[in-house]
Amino acid sequence: MGNMETLLIKNVTIVPMTGVETWFTNGYIYVESDRIKDVGRGSPPDSRYSADTVIDGDGMVAIPGLINGHTHTPMSLLRGYADDLPLMEWLEQMWAVEGQLSEEDMYWASMLSMIEMIKSGTTTFSDMYYGMNRIAAGVEQVGLRALLTQGIIEGNDGGDEQLDASVSFVKNWDQAANRRIHALLSPHAPYTCSPALIEKIVDRAHELDCSIHTHLAETRDEIRMVRDSHGTTPIALMENIGLFTRHVIAAHGVYLTDEDRHILSSRNVGVIHNPKSNMKLASGIAPVATMLNDGITVGLGTDGAASNNSLDMFEEMRFANLLQKGNLENPTALSAYDTLAMGTAGGARALGIDDQAGTIEPGKKADITLVDFTQAHVLPVNDVISHLIYSAKAEDVAYTIVDGRLLMANRELTTIDEDEVFWHIAAIKDKLL
Amino acid sequence: MGNMETLLIKNVTIVPMTGVETWFTNGYIYVESDRIKDVGRGSPPDSRYSADTVIDGDGMVAIPGLINGHTHTPMSLLRGYADDLPLMEWLEQMWAVEGQLSEEDMYWASMLSMIEMIKSGTTTFSDMYYGMNRIAAGVEQVGLRALLTQGIIEGNDGGDEQLDASVSFVKNWDQAANRRIHALLSPHAPYTCSPALIEKIVDRAHELDCSIHTHLAETRDEIRMVRDSHGTTPIALMENIGLFTRHVIAAHGVYLTDEDRHILSSRNVGVIHNPKSNMKLASGIAPVATMLNDGITVGLGTDGAASNNSLDMFEEMRFANLLQKGNLENPTALSAYDTLAMGTAGGARALGIDDQAGTIEPGKKADITLVDFTQAHVLPVNDVISHLIYSAKAEDVAYTIVDGRLLMANRELTTIDEDEVFWHIAAIKDKLL
Ligand SMILES: [Zn+2]
Ligand SMILES: [Zn+2]
Repeated sequence: MGNMETLLIKNVTIVPMTGVETWFTNGYIYVESDRIKDVGRGSPPDSRYSADTVIDGDGMVAIPGLINGHTHTPMSLLRGYADDLPLMEWLEQMWAVEGQLSEEDMYWASMLSMIEMIKSGTTTFSDMYYGMNRIAAGVEQVGLRALLTQGIIEGNDGGDEQLDASVSFVKNWDQAANRRIHALLSPHAPYTCSPALIEKIVDRAHELDCSIHTHLAETRDEIRMVRDSHGTTPIALMENIGLFTRHVIAAHGVYLTDEDRHILSSRNVGVIHNPKSNMKLASGIAPVATMLNDGITVGLGTDGAASNNSLDMFEEMRFANLLQKGNLENPTALSAYDTLAMGTAGGARALGIDDQAGTIEPGKKADITLVDFTQAHVLPVNDVISHLIYSAKAEDVAYTIVDGRLLMANRELTTIDEDEVFWHIAAIKDKLL
Repeated sequence: MGNMETLLIKNVTIVPMTGVETWFTNGYIYVESDRIKDVGRGSPPDSRYSADTVIDGDGMVAIPGLINGHTHTPMSLLRGYADDLPLMEWLEQMWAVEGQLSEEDMYWASMLSMIEMIKSGTTTFSDMYYGMNRIAAGVEQVGLRALLTQGIIEGNDGGDEQLDASVSFVKNWDQAANRRIHALLSPHAPYTCSPALIEKIVDRAHELDCSIHTHLAETRDEIRMVRDSHGTTPIALMENIGLFTRHVIAAHGVYLTDEDRHILSSRNVGVIHNPKSNMKLASGIAPVATMLNDGITVGLGTDGAASNNSLDMFEEMRFANLLQKGNLENPTALSAYDTLAMGTAGGARALGIDDQAGTIEPGKKADITLVDFTQAHVLPVNDVISHLIYSAKAEDVAYTIVDGRLLMANRELTTIDEDEVFWHIAAIKDKLL
């Protein structure tokens, strides 16, 4: 055991997300190698003080690392590009640039997103884009936990070539990097893939024993298109195709019937709510409070930075919460705790990685975010959970820890050279934008 | 002229908010004493370089200082207190604590709010609470621009005593501190003041030649109460009473009829939209896009930190924008520029201080916020205006300048001792919360 790296976080307020009342002040977390070994109140046993790394968490709150359940990391390159346009005009402008991106461009843009995510306390992200072999290598180096997949769009070739590439990607990368990388298959959406193609993808997912990540029930247009083509809802169509015979991560779920919600809960689909993207693209307002009441597993995502325009899970939680309250005209529609759960434990369940992440408990991987609680905007600390949702900011994150490794310490990144990434981003912008 | 303090900001991107297309990169701003003397492109004339203070604005964006049009600064003490309760239960818990606050407590809580506002780039705030003599002295020392008023609630004494105190306050403080302080009268709301009392307040406002700050049309309950008592809407009631014969700052405007909007626009009422507070308290969604189309002057406010729970105008602008898009299901419902205008030039018009603040132009007071644009979450800089609304954060503010004075330089406050304020806040919390 002597050659394992050890980490002690002491004097820290701990929000383990194992229950509404389980948080406590003045505790410690002890990490051996990549896993949480011990979580306790007061001072740790004497032996713990000889840890290789000791962080004094005085004035800080430890939460499970935040989980961004749906994003497209290379799209940070298009942050702010062609904003405030009608949806189709915006999409056409996006596609025109995206069509010119090389895998190298996608890699650097994904690295830019990883900087932003680490700096805002995200430890796991679920990504759908192209060029994933290169991005996976980036994730391996950077140290984040990630679910990676290449979105398959049927197009002219019937999607076979993309599916083959995706299958190779899953074979090469699933469970890589100390199991930090999960590789998935991804039919992009019901309006870009035929039922036949989706059935083929599901078959391959069964062979590979991997999860599936897709977009579902995002816009009124999608609902109308699926009804016109198939006479049913996107969720019911997927149920008929057999999509939910695999574990599925379904981004959006804005428009849902009672039957849809029954399918989502009984099939244990992980729904990822993306409030800021849904608001900015004017897609609509997802029935999150209703989904949670129905027992559906809901996580949160930022979607791509082009439709957000950031990857900040603190803001995403804040928007998720206030949007339900405002829209339902009910100040108790969604509690701060349930919102934080969507960003942590619930997100982990939605992604199917709750054996690894989502709570601070012995046996879990050590994915921990330390939030500084000493600045004016979180004082006085009348309620820790409330402050995490309504008041804390990305920049309050002092440490971001994944697999027991400090990816950010005192706001300094340890695994990415920011200037190098910024240099490449500037060069790509000069070339394309 | 030689004894005037001078300030040069060079190499800076300038967003003067004088028009959608008027922003430019690589400019300079020259300040003499408390006023902007010169704004230009490229390098300033040689004589400018001998300014007493020179800020290299490379990588920064200069915007007019943000204007928080409606808040209750002492309520930062109750941040996160009794959250997620039904409205009446929350109010009762608020009142129980507020009834015990001394003027000294209110002063320190207001100072806590001023720290948060300066650190998030706010240069003007419009405050309604009690203990304003002490708070005005704080504003004088701290250097912010402020509209201050004591909210009058009729209660048992008919409001006369409160009105007298308010009148004294206006006489003592209006136009104080180099005209940074504006003192106003304030009937709290149509459901806490009778028409007779409001008429009396309007008369005194005419005598004092001061503006009026009030809450109007915030909740469905208020609409119902006013209809039951007076058979009309809150706005129409105020029109009948003659409130709008003075310049009025009306917080909220959530529920408005066509006639109400006609009154607000023809009377040039400054409506302050508080999206986060309206969402958190589940009051409803104000028709901001419609108000702007109708030519109503709309500014933004955070309301008190107890119902927000922060005083961050960058977030307030972001929520204002995305809430309209999401609620109206229209991605062009509100542009980034029009949103930034509500936080700056429009806010200044709403508060009746557009002769002083709201734009970066020669002759205006030098109220300027410098936003750092070098961090990952605003890269690449595809669109400066878009980034200010959708991506920039409070913590990106590097300098906050009021009347040409640096209240924050490189994130360091120059006029408030944060530790002293935090010490007092902790002591008050120990005593009351
Ligand atoms: Zn997406
Ligand atoms: Zn208010």
